[in-house]
Amino acid sequence: MIKSIRKRYQEVIVILKYEEVAKKIQEYIRINDLKQGDKLPILDDMTRQFDVSKSTIIKALDILESRGKIFQVRGSGIFVRRHRRDGHVNLLEAQGFKNDMPHYDLHSTVLALEVVKPDKKIQEQLQVKPEDDIYYIKRIRYVDGESFCIEQSWYKKSVVTYLNEQIVEESIFNYISKALNLSIGFADLVVELDVLNKEEADIFGTHEHDACLMLKSIYHLHNGEVFDYSEIKYRKDKTKFFMQSNNFY
Amino acid sequence: MIKSIRKRYQEVIVILKYEEVAKKIQEYIRINDLKQGDKLPILDDMTRQFDVSKSTIIKALDILESRGKIFQVRGSGIFVRRHRRDGHVNLLEAQGFKNDMPHYDLHSTVLALEVVKPDKKIQEQLQVKPEDDIYYIKRIRYVDGESFCIEQSWYKKSVVTYLNEQIVEESIFNYISKALNLSIGFADLVVELDVLNKEEADIFGTHEHDACLMLKSIYHLHNGEVFDYSEIKYRKDKTKFFMQSNNFY
Repeated sequence: MIKSIRKRYQEVIVILKYEEVAKKIQEYIRINDLKQGDKLPILDDMTRQFDVSKSTIIKALDILESRGKIFQVRGSGIFVRRHRRDGHVNLLEAQGFKNDMPHYDLHSTVLALEVVKPDKKIQEQLQVKPEDDIYYIKRIRYVDGESFCIEQSWYKKSVVTYLNEQIVEESIFNYISKALNLSIGFADLVVELDVLNKEEADIFGTHEHDACLMLKSIYHLHNGEVFDYSEIKYRKDKTKFFMQSNNFY
Repeated sequence: MIKSIRKRYQEVIVILKYEEVAKKIQEYIRINDLKQGDKLPILDDMTRQFDVSKSTIIKALDILESRGKIFQVRGSGIFVRRHRRDGHVNLLEAQGFKNDMPHYDLHSTVLALEVVKPDKKIQEQLQVKPEDDIYYIKRIRYVDGESFCIEQSWYKKSVVTYLNEQIVEESIFNYISKALNLSIGFADLVVELDVLNKEEADIFGTHEHDACLMLKSIYHLHNGEVFDYSEIKYRKDKTKFFMQSNNFY
């Protein structure tokens, strides 16, 4: 048992090392203002520059490739992909509002923060029982002082054991991963057309029944357990979703 | 030079082998009707079952994980993720209409297939000059006899050297990868709200100025060269986009 915990611990350390090197390479791209199609240094030079083994560099590059940051052309080199687009919500990096839009003044207004019992839809999405406790949160998110989206989210209280208004005004995901030390794994996302109700239209300063983009997300911990379901309606004239795909072979 | 070609060839063979095993594992999931959260056999059993080395299985599992098909919990096992959802367009597997919806009767009507000179927008998206030749294609896609989306696409003729109506009625992407033997690499996708013009509304049997989902895609070859830009408007009441993300750490 202790051996297995130690092994797991070592594996986590190794993953963190790849992540750290991946971050350094992204930092290198940023500092050197590399654009789409620009070439990264050759492997040997990166090995020297970042003072890690070749295999660590290769693993870090694989991470960046899977995230759509770079592409590798065998025999030719490693190239930078298109960057984050300002004002576009990057669906595949949706690690929270704050991380999506680093160049903007962002804040949230909390409309609801309460412990509720799940209705049928939430029971199904969160895979919980009618008697389970759920944190229900409703927030308006503002970008540069303008309302940008309205989010409703439902967190399993058995996983996210404590929330308060201050946490909810800031980044819940940062709190979950850093304070609660939970490992966020993956998400299933659905984008669809929806319409605004009266309250939402008032918040956006627009008209009831206006069309909007709706993003529904189910977030899982690393071990596969669902912990959060959210529904976000975006302001029509502000929203573009951006994705980088590399599933073509 | 010949040595480098041989090396490249061997690398391609190895990649194809991982892909083949990844496909077999997906087939195994399908045949055994494994659901979200169901566990795959342990590594040793898969090694025996698929008659390949452990490292090949591991690489194939990494491919499936990066595509959102499975998730791996260290010390616990490998589990199946939520499957393709019927009727949802999977944005990250958008390898063509035909592959998205295998259980439906699909066909296309070709409204335009011509060689044109690119306007400013297309010059920018495809990174071409005003005098370059571009294949312009406009298609209506039908699902079970009903109009589902209207696609306009622009292909660099220097890359996609030949197209005819029959190819365009079928899958252009299959033709590109199988007949022209081009290696499709990655895509940048943007989802936004748009409205239907009169012609589009008539095709969908709905009203002019109705809201719709618009998907704009830029497709690159494996070497990073852009070869296709497309704009697809989807029928409002039919469309949900689905994505599986695993960029949380």
